[in-house]
Amino acid sequence: METSPTREVASERTALLRSTASAPRVVFTTILTRSPISRIDVARHTGLSQAAVTKAVSPLMVAGLVADYPQARQQGRAGRPASPVTVVPEALVVIGVKVNTDEVIAVATDLRTEVLHRARLSLTSPAPEAVVEAIAAVCDSLKGALGSATEVLAGVGVAVSGDVDTDTGVVRESALMRWTGVDLGARLHRRLDLPVVIENDVRALTFAEHWFGVGVGTQSFAIVTIGRGIGSGLHVNAEVIEGAYGVAGEIGHLPLGPPQRLCSCGRRGCVEAVAGTAAIVAAVSAAHGRAITIEEAVTLAHDGDPAANAAFGEAATVIGTAIASLVNLIGPELVIIGGEAVRNFDLFDAQLRAAFAAHAFGAAAECRIVVRPHSFEDWARGAAAGVIRSLVA
Amino acid sequence: METSPTREVASERTALLRSTASAPRVVFTTILTRSPISRIDVARHTGLSQAAVTKAVSPLMVAGLVADYPQARQQGRAGRPASPVTVVPEALVVIGVKVNTDEVIAVATDLRTEVLHRARLSLTSPAPEAVVEAIAAVCDSLKGALGSATEVLAGVGVAVSGDVDTDTGVVRESALMRWTGVDLGARLHRRLDLPVVIENDVRALTFAEHWFGVGVGTQSFAIVTIGRGIGSGLHVNAEVIEGAYGVAGEIGHLPLGPPQRLCSCGRRGCVEAVAGTAAIVAAVSAAHGRAITIEEAVTLAHDGDPAANAAFGEAATVIGTAIASLVNLIGPELVIIGGEAVRNFDLFDAQLRAAFAAHAFGAAAECRIVVRPHSFEDWARGAAAGVIRSLVA
Repeated sequence: METSPTREVASERTALLRSTASAPRVVFTTILTRSPISRIDVARHTGLSQAAVTKAVSPLMVAGLVADYPQARQQGRAGRPASPVTVVPEALVVIGVKVNTDEVIAVATDLRTEVLHRARLSLTSPAPEAVVEAIAAVCDSLKGALGSATEVLAGVGVAVSGDVDTDTGVVRESALMRWTGVDLGARLHRRLDLPVVIENDVRALTFAEHWFGVGVGTQSFAIVTIGRGIGSGLHVNAEVIEGAYGVAGEIGHLPLGPPQRLCSCGRRGCVEAVAGTAAIVAAVSAAHGRAITIEEAVTLAHDGDPAANAAFGEAATVIGTAIASLVNLIGPELVIIGGEAVRNFDLFDAQLRAAFAAHAFGAAAECRIVVRPHSFEDWARGAAAGVIRSLVA
Repeated sequence: METSPTREVASERTALLRSTASAPRVVFTTILTRSPISRIDVARHTGLSQAAVTKAVSPLMVAGLVADYPQARQQGRAGRPASPVTVVPEALVVIGVKVNTDEVIAVATDLRTEVLHRARLSLTSPAPEAVVEAIAAVCDSLKGALGSATEVLAGVGVAVSGDVDTDTGVVRESALMRWTGVDLGARLHRRLDLPVVIENDVRALTFAEHWFGVGVGTQSFAIVTIGRGIGSGLHVNAEVIEGAYGVAGEIGHLPLGPPQRLCSCGRRGCVEAVAGTAAIVAAVSAAHGRAITIEEAVTLAHDGDPAANAAFGEAATVIGTAIASLVNLIGPELVIIGGEAVRNFDLFDAQLRAAFAAHAFGAAAECRIVVRPHSFEDWARGAAAGVIRSLVA
C-alpha cells in the first residue's frame, strides 16, 4: 500500500502533541477547549507557572496549532494586555464514523469537531468485512472532499456499540452488530494507512459533550441513550469514566428487568431486553400476532393501542429505574437523554420520570433530566472527538 | 461557652492550609499521602515547578507541618541529594467518631489517621440529643487522653449512615438512625466549640482508603459495605465521587429486589430491604414463627437450616447483582467488601460471586472482588480522615 507523503504536516503536528513532556499536551487541551483564553488563565487552569505556559505555547505556535487571538481594543482597562491565544481549528482535521447495523455515517471535522464534510453509506451486511469496506469508501469520499486539507488529516475514529478495547482496537463484544473479538482497528489501519481509534459509541459521544458541549459548564453529567441500544456515558469530577477494564456506563445491562427476559448479550433481565427497540417491537408483535415495525408500534401507541402502550410503558419504567440507579450511585448534576428513541419521547416521558422519582435516593432526586436529540451525525462527531483526544491523552 | 485558647497552634496551622492559594494545599496533600517524598517528586505529582514547590514547602516547615526527612547516606549515587521531606504526623490531631444506633465509637488520630487513643460509649437512644451528648462525652475523654496535644486538635469528624450534606452538616435522611433533617453539625459545633465535619460513613471510609489505604496503589476502587446498612464508596480517576447533590454510592438503594419488599427508607425493592441485617433477621424469624437474632440466624445457616440458608442466599444474590451493576456502570479496578457482615462472609461468598458473574458485562467481569474486614474503629478513622480532608479541600 502506498504511504501518504502529503500527511507530513499532520505527522509533525501530532508528534508535537504526543511528545513525552506533559506540559504541551495539557496546555494545548486547555486552549482547545477554552479558546480564546489568556496565558494567565491557561496557567490558572493547568496549575503550571506562567513561564511554563509561555514555554509550552511557543512550539505550538510554530507548528501552527495555536495562534495569537486578535485582541479587541483595551477599553480603558489598566494593566498589561491579556494576550489571549486561540486554537487554530483547521490545523488538523479528523474523520469520525458511527457504525450502525445498516449503514455507516461519517463526518470530516476540524479540531473543535465542527463538521466540514459529510458522507453516509448503506451496509450490505453488518459483517466486519462489509463494515471495513464501507468505512474505507466513506473515508475516500471525505478525503476527496477535503482536497489539500488531507495533508492535515490526523486519523479516523470509529464509534461502535458494545464492549470496545480502545488500546488494542478490538471490539470484544457488540450485541448490536453480533460481533465477538473483531480486530476492527488493525483491519482498518491496514486498509486506510491512517491512525485509527476505535471507541464505544456512547463514550465517544460523551467525550464530545465533555470537551465541546455540556461538559464545559458542569462538573458532572451522564448521557443516557435510548433506542436500539441502551447505553450511557459518565463524566464525573471533570473526567470521563472509562472503566479499569474498558467497560463503563453499561446501563443497558443493569439487571433491572424480569429474569425471564433474555438479552441479545446472553444475560438475563437486562434493561435493554425490556426497553431496547427490538424488545418493544417483539412485545407489540407478540400481542398482535404479526410482525410489527417500530414505526408502526409508535403509531399504535399514539392511537391508544393497549399492547403498544404497555410495551412503551414497561420500557419507560425500566429506563427510569435504571437512571435512578445510576444517579444513586454516581450523583451527576444532570442526565441528558439522547438516542434515536427520543423522537418519540412523549411515549416514555411520564412513566420514566415517575419511576425515577420512586427510586432516586434523597437529594439525588434533584438531578435534572433533560432530553436532547442527538443525530447519528452527532455520534460520528463523537468518534472524531475520540481521535482528537487520542492525540493529547 | 469558653473558647479554647490552647488551640492557637491548631488554628495557625489550619489557617495556613486554608489560605486562598492552592499551591500550599496541593503540596501538603502530596507530602501527606506520599511521605517521605523528594521535592522533585512533589513537583512531578502536582505539575508545579520546583521553584513553586520550594516556595510552598517553606511556610509548611515554619508551621511545623512538614520537616526534612533524615536522609540515608548516598550510596555512591551521583548528582545532588534528593532532599526528601515528610509530613509531621503529630503536627495536628483529629477526633473521628462513627455513630451507630446503639453506640458511638471514637478515635483520636494523627494526620495520617494513626490511632493515638480510643473511646466508645453505649447510647441510651438513637435520638439526636442522646447522640450529641455521647459524642461530647467521648470527645472529653479523648481530650483528657491527648493532654497537651489538645492544643493541636484540628476538629471532630462524625460518620453517619445515610444522606448527609457535608457543607451544612445536616443529616438529611438516615434510615438506620431514623433521622430526617437533623442539623448535627451545628448542634455539635455549639456543644464542642471545635470545627465539626459530618460525613456519610461509607464515604468517610473511602476517603481513608483513598489517601492511606488501597487508593495509593490504584486508579479506581469501590468499597461495598454489608451489614445493617448496605453502602458503597467510589474512587474513580483518583478522586472520590461525592455526588453533585451530596448523594453517591447508594448501592443499598438500587431497586434490584422484589417490589413487595419495603425498605426502611420508604422505597420499594431496595437491595437493603433484601440483604440488610434487618431483612435477613425478619425472613428467618418469619419462617420460624419467633424472633430470631442475627447471631442465631448465622448459627442456623451454618447448621443447614433451610430458611436461614434461603435468606442468606437471597441476600448474597442481590448483593452480587448490585456489585455487577456498579461494575457495569463504573468499571473499578477492584471491589473491596467490608462491613460487619463480612465476619460471616462464608454465608455469602458462592452465591454473591455467581450473581456477579451472571450479570457483569464483558471485560467488567475481570474486576477483582476482595473481602476485607473493617472494624467500627476503621470507620471512625474514616471520619478522622474527613476532617483532615476538610483542611485541604
